[in-house]
Amino acid sequence: MDERFKKQIRFLTEIDKEKKIWRENLLSDMSRHENDAEHSFHAAVMAVVLSEYFDKDNLLKVLEMMLLHDAVEIYAGDTPAYDTEGMKSKEEREKAAADKLYRILPKDQCDKLKKLWIEFEECKTKEAKFCNIMDRMQPTMLIDALGGISWKNRNIKKEQVLNRNKITMSGPDKIREYMEDVITRAYNDGCLK
Amino acid sequence: MDERFKKQIRFLTEIDKEKKIWRENLLSDMSRHENDAEHSFHAAVMAVVLSEYFDKDNLLKVLEMMLLHDAVEIYAGDTPAYDTEGMKSKEEREKAAADKLYRILPKDQCDKLKKLWIEFEECKTKEAKFCNIMDRMQPTMLIDALGGISWKNRNIKKEQVLNRNKITMSGPDKIREYMEDVITRAYNDGCLK
Repeated sequence: MDERFKKQIRFLTEIDKEKKIWRENLLSDMSRHENDAEHSFHAAVMAVVLSEYFDKDNLLKVLEMMLLHDAVEIYAGDTPAYDTEGMKSKEEREKAAADKLYRILPKDQCDKLKKLWIEFEECKTKEAKFCNIMDRMQPTMLIDALGGISWKNRNIKKEQVLNRNKITMSGPDKIREYMEDVITRAYNDGCLK
Repeated sequence: MDERFKKQIRFLTEIDKEKKIWRENLLSDMSRHENDAEHSFHAAVMAVVLSEYFDKDNLLKVLEMMLLHDAVEIYAGDTPAYDTEGMKSKEEREKAAADKLYRILPKDQCDKLKKLWIEFEECKTKEAKFCNIMDRMQPTMLIDALGGISWKNRNIKKEQVLNRNKITMSGPDKIREYMEDVITRAYNDGCLK
């Protein structure tokens, strides 16, 4: 094997560890937590099925970004959405993790994929906005499957969910209306304070 | 919510069940089995990183196909690669599952994604061949991380692995050489009979 191919295999083997990064969020039947690999898979499938609500020009870039948007958590760990303390050090931890992870790849791929992750985090381009919306909509959809019980169990406030979903609310009408509907129903049912 | 959007959300919620379809294959540290969502995620990331060894023209189609190549197993269950009995009814079970699953979507998306899955199964186009190679290379790479021990534990024969990887062996040189190397080392170390 040449050096380039070896580096690619080393990186791809390392990606296996995303299956051991557990998120706060539960599967739709609340049977267990989900991990980063499962979340990334699910959000990518959502991007495929919901692409018509966005500019479809660059769905390939969106899928590459979506698949790797959480890979830095292999070293930085998952920072739950409502963990205000963890959020303070998130940026620094994840930047160090990105350096460590993408360096395993050949230089050109390291540069390309690290840039793509930074673009996701900065959330300024249309592709990054779409991915950030999928990233937030995915757990919300799972929580809604049981009417918001998992928000209730964690004492989450409506205001926190709205705050977390600012980017979602600035997205396409269909998705904003859907998210408003989920949140309103959970609030009316007493699942969100 | 309009009917189209409702159907899309219903389908995407159903996809959550892929996280509960357990494969025979283990994570690279052998700590547990992996599920279809994790496998699909990992194979899709492999397609991104290894795309240079293929015709890159249609990587978008490859990723859509890769992400959904095992979705029928939500109803049909996973059929392990060396389960000769299960293999007999696999095609029939999976076709019925595809009809049931994709029917949840709006008609145009149902047709598109079912067609894509059939193309994967028929394995004739270059995109389908690439996806089938990733599908087989992903577990092999994980097995190789611990030198083939999990083949040894299951009494797998070299011939079975070669037979399962016919498509991989007809693929690009780099990947064929890699797979031959993995299999030869495992055989020499007594992990493959």
